[in-house]
Amino acid sequence: MSHVLALSGGVGGAKLAAGLAAVLAPEDLTIVVNTGDDFEHLGLTVCPDIDSVTYALAGLNDTERGWGVKDETWQAMAMLRDLGAPDWFNLGDRDLGMHLARSARLRAGESLSEATEALTRSLGIAPRVVPMSDAPVRTQIETEAGWLEFQHYFVREQCRPVARAIRFAGGGLAEPSPAFAETLARPDLGAVIVCPSNPFLSVDPILALAGVGEALQARDVPVVAVSPIVGGTAIKGPLAKLMGELGQPVSNAAIAAHYGALIDHLVIDSSDRAEAEGLRAAGLSVTITHTVMCDAEDRERLARVALSAARTETG
Amino acid sequence: MSHVLALSGGVGGAKLAAGLAAVLAPEDLTIVVNTGDDFEHLGLTVCPDIDSVTYALAGLNDTERGWGVKDETWQAMAMLRDLGAPDWFNLGDRDLGMHLARSARLRAGESLSEATEALTRSLGIAPRVVPMSDAPVRTQIETEAGWLEFQHYFVREQCRPVARAIRFAGGGLAEPSPAFAETLARPDLGAVIVCPSNPFLSVDPILALAGVGEALQARDVPVVAVSPIVGGTAIKGPLAKLMGELGQPVSNAAIAAHYGALIDHLVIDSSDRAEAEGLRAAGLSVTITHTVMCDAEDRERLARVALSAARTETG
Repeated sequence: MSHVLALSGGVGGAKLAAGLAAVLAPEDLTIVVNTGDDFEHLGLTVCPDIDSVTYALAGLNDTERGWGVKDETWQAMAMLRDLGAPDWFNLGDRDLGMHLARSARLRAGESLSEATEALTRSLGIAPRVVPMSDAPVRTQIETEAGWLEFQHYFVREQCRPVARAIRFAGGGLAEPSPAFAETLARPDLGAVIVCPSNPFLSVDPILALAGVGEALQARDVPVVAVSPIVGGTAIKGPLAKLMGELGQPVSNAAIAAHYGALIDHLVIDSSDRAEAEGLRAAGLSVTITHTVMCDAEDRERLARVALSAARTETG
Repeated sequence: MSHVLALSGGVGGAKLAAGLAAVLAPEDLTIVVNTGDDFEHLGLTVCPDIDSVTYALAGLNDTERGWGVKDETWQAMAMLRDLGAPDWFNLGDRDLGMHLARSARLRAGESLSEATEALTRSLGIAPRVVPMSDAPVRTQIETEAGWLEFQHYFVREQCRPVARAIRFAGGGLAEPSPAFAETLARPDLGAVIVCPSNPFLSVDPILALAGVGEALQARDVPVVAVSPIVGGTAIKGPLAKLMGELGQPVSNAAIAAHYGALIDHLVIDSSDRAEAEGLRAAGLSVTITHTVMCDAEDRERLARVALSAARTETG
């Protein structure tokens, strides 16, 4: 079996990553995760997307709330609030254990790759979960009030400010992490799956790293993106609002145009089948399927569809 | 009313401190707390004695378990354990909120005094709770295996190693905190109450600070110690074992000899009344009363007894 590289952001991407992990042998999958949303909070290094992928792969994710750890409690948060400490970022008690363990490892000199490998292995996660880079890259959003750090925009301001532009501070100079670079260069790399994460906020930071776009273009490996659009809008998160503010229609055509020559194949939701003809006319292969993932069966089915789409591109 | 200075360690001292806080006007009481047990753990600055006093004064202490916060949970700890992180020091979820809030303030440049004042005020604590020093002082125990940091001895090793000696690294050079120094110099200082904490581990670090012993001796202010001995042994903690290892009998006479000329008056438990005559013969004033504090009534009564003992010394 050839190797599969998955590029993932947080929650939506994490679901497909979990599906891929369920249907592939661990040694056949590398999941590269966006770290543009990472930030320092109360002295902790918080990596929301790595955590979403980690919790999803370990079966620890809260499927009701849609983010964070299941059976979570909020006692530390309540105390922080009583003490007048910043409480705009939700820190669950179990989640705090993760942030503390990671931060201790980073402080002891481990790279984010090393810390992530140790932590995911501790939870019994078999495939390789890899930060996109060991260097800090910070997604920032330009608003009326100036440039906002991602979590300030996303969590503190609840995505309310109108976005004018997005940048990835440090992105162009940051190298991909060693395992990411190694995977990009693997002779047996057979497919790249772009998970249904926000292209602008979660996938672009990965593509903006030094040499990554070029490396993907240079490889004769099919790149299959699963669209985050469902029924002409985003299933969750700020994608639809953001696309509007950036002057783009909320459509698969806009997603395809955004990825451009990078992708060979777009998997779109059945509710958006009317778009398929136009996408194909623009030279893109298209698979139409149900892309909403509510349970393990959905995740694994969509993973198989994406892998099968990659095979049609190779064949 | 003249001002009262209380010197306190953790749990036992915190109980009497809470009693004093209940019977005195807030402006008449300064509680100076041992920081020799403080340590850095998982990137957090943990101050066990300040926290014990804070939780006791805020009514947040767990009276069943005898330490920590009531209604505590241990979810972060469970996650840390799953992640292979150090788990020998108990970090409750609510307690973690305190450590995070304090550490964030220290990282932002506040002194431990400033952080402690802000945090205790947030919890509605009216009297001044003051770290003994803003400079790091670290209590260390010499054992067969060499010098152990206090929490390694106390929590990780559960006080099992035989103690040969105790030292307060940094103690002799560290200045008392500004509010402690100011209180020592107050013209209206009317009494010093040494709470029933471990003299060797919890009170000595306070007395070892630069100039503190001299300042106390120089003031014509009664110093009343409440003995931690009950029925010829220590009510809890490593005191009895430690005194034996240091070649001392576990008695009020040994406690009195240890404090020496520093104290004018010793409050001892009714179960140790047989010792009173010998103590008095050695020139010390003695009050005999029930010193075990199980509830608020006990704490307030003992506080009144100690304050009354101070008044007899003044009169």
